[in-house]
Amino acid sequence: MRIAIAGSGALGLYYGSMLQKAGNDVHFLLRRDYEAIVTKGLVVHSVNGDYRLPEVKGYRQPEEIGKVNLVLVGLKTFANHRFRELIEPLVGRDTLILTLQNGLGNEEELAEIFGNERVMGGVAYLLSNRGEPGALHHLGEGRVILGGLFPGDMKKVEKVAPVFQAAGIECRVVSDLKKAKWEKLAWNIPFNGICALAKKPVNEILGMETSRRLVTDMMREVIDAANAQGLEKDISVSFAGKLVNFSMGMGDYKPSMLIDRIEGRPLELEAIFGKPLTAGKSKGVDMPRVETLFALLRLTENV
Amino acid sequence: MRIAIAGSGALGLYYGSMLQKAGNDVHFLLRRDYEAIVTKGLVVHSVNGDYRLPEVKGYRQPEEIGKVNLVLVGLKTFANHRFRELIEPLVGRDTLILTLQNGLGNEEELAEIFGNERVMGGVAYLLSNRGEPGALHHLGEGRVILGGLFPGDMKKVEKVAPVFQAAGIECRVVSDLKKAKWEKLAWNIPFNGICALAKKPVNEILGMETSRRLVTDMMREVIDAANAQGLEKDISVSFAGKLVNFSMGMGDYKPSMLIDRIEGRPLELEAIFGKPLTAGKSKGVDMPRVETLFALLRLTENV
Repeated sequence: MRIAIAGSGALGLYYGSMLQKAGNDVHFLLRRDYEAIVTKGLVVHSVNGDYRLPEVKGYRQPEEIGKVNLVLVGLKTFANHRFRELIEPLVGRDTLILTLQNGLGNEEELAEIFGNERVMGGVAYLLSNRGEPGALHHLGEGRVILGGLFPGDMKKVEKVAPVFQAAGIECRVVSDLKKAKWEKLAWNIPFNGICALAKKPVNEILGMETSRRLVTDMMREVIDAANAQGLEKDISVSFAGKLVNFSMGMGDYKPSMLIDRIEGRPLELEAIFGKPLTAGKSKGVDMPRVETLFALLRLTENV
Repeated sequence: MRIAIAGSGALGLYYGSMLQKAGNDVHFLLRRDYEAIVTKGLVVHSVNGDYRLPEVKGYRQPEEIGKVNLVLVGLKTFANHRFRELIEPLVGRDTLILTLQNGLGNEEELAEIFGNERVMGGVAYLLSNRGEPGALHHLGEGRVILGGLFPGDMKKVEKVAPVFQAAGIECRVVSDLKKAKWEKLAWNIPFNGICALAKKPVNEILGMETSRRLVTDMMREVIDAANAQGLEKDISVSFAGKLVNFSMGMGDYKPSMLIDRIEGRPLELEAIFGKPLTAGKSKGVDMPRVETLFALLRLTENV
């Protein structure tokens, strides 16, 4: 399959490299690491065993790539206003566009430009950080959930899921992608937000009783908002406890929003906070802790 | 009146200097500014007109001061464990102890050591910051509210209030000091907390819509908790709006907790957050925004 990776950060590089390793024809739209990757390839230090791609097709402009069968969107959501400029040159008659970006609203924004019929969404559970130019650290997880959001989505999903599965990526197909997205938000909202604000990794948040309780309480607010959205099946309240237990094993992992803040980038506040808060409010669900964290993160944005 | 200032920070220096200027025999327990103040006196740059005390009686140890008629406690509340060591040498048979410290619980802690009969509380509305050693900046306000907390307090208050009034300090006597303390908390909790966490002055908090709304919502939580404590008269909900409007005039004022954080001191978290949260919870009042801010402030304490 001819695949373009639009937004080759820690997520795009990981899935793109896995897909290339499995024999797909993968084209990476690069910015920061262009020189290093095009000249020396990509090294992935992975919990599943390191691997190296000596030759990587890297580009600065989407026009150089041309049409593909699948665009994998891994852009930071604060760059969503560049969708048209970055993705349009990649789209042919039958091109599918899969976003694995964080938060809510990305599928809708893509569909508005490129049409429902070619856009699909997914959720990635992946612990990865970029290293020195040309290197990627895959620290854990990696599974992807693909599913329906728009009518007819399941047909697209059935085309794409096997490509991921054949590349050794754990890929589950669900009928209710909305639920999967909210389940990820239940992790992303407290951990991305608190880690970025306090500039501390996951284990320091969980190591203090008051902030561990805050994480759990915040997860419950997200679950309440989620369950008001008309999911096929409610998210159970015990999911919060499970997520916290799961996070205990993450050690000093730095969520992407913390890395964005450390490296002086804007934060993905609208997709991870603004839109979920609006969705909650629209169903009459109050999320005071999430709202507080959102206000404090906005206040400390200087970009 | 023979007065000792125990804790000569921005608050102790201001009231002590005003009381000395009016002819009282004031003795300052000093730490950081000892050398400068003992050798060169104190300069107060005040919105009401600058003044200078060429001679200031400064001490490093309370034993050098000996017994006084009134101890004015201006210590940071995180130093409350030093009450006995710092105050006992100042206390004679008829000595009164007045705390103008922030938050809840200080009167009770003093009373436990020195007895109800000599301890009284007050609330100070004062905008002041220390300057270079030997200098104080009085940026606005200055009024004091004295009142009853323990039985028989009003008699003590009537002894002390005239001393403040004679020194040109606006000093009001109220029967319900608890209410006055919670009213100040309604300012202190959002502004001290948010300014310290975001490392931004008052006007930057109020300059952004989301954080201005957070301030108001947080004030409402404090007012709800206050009104559950059995005050003589409820604090009106409109008090939050009034406080916000009043704060608009503060410009780039840095609340004491922000200065504590900038200068690497611990924060007054127990008195300003921990105890009010416990008081709210004990009456069944949920304060999710205050709780969130408290957890984030604790998480970012490194001392």
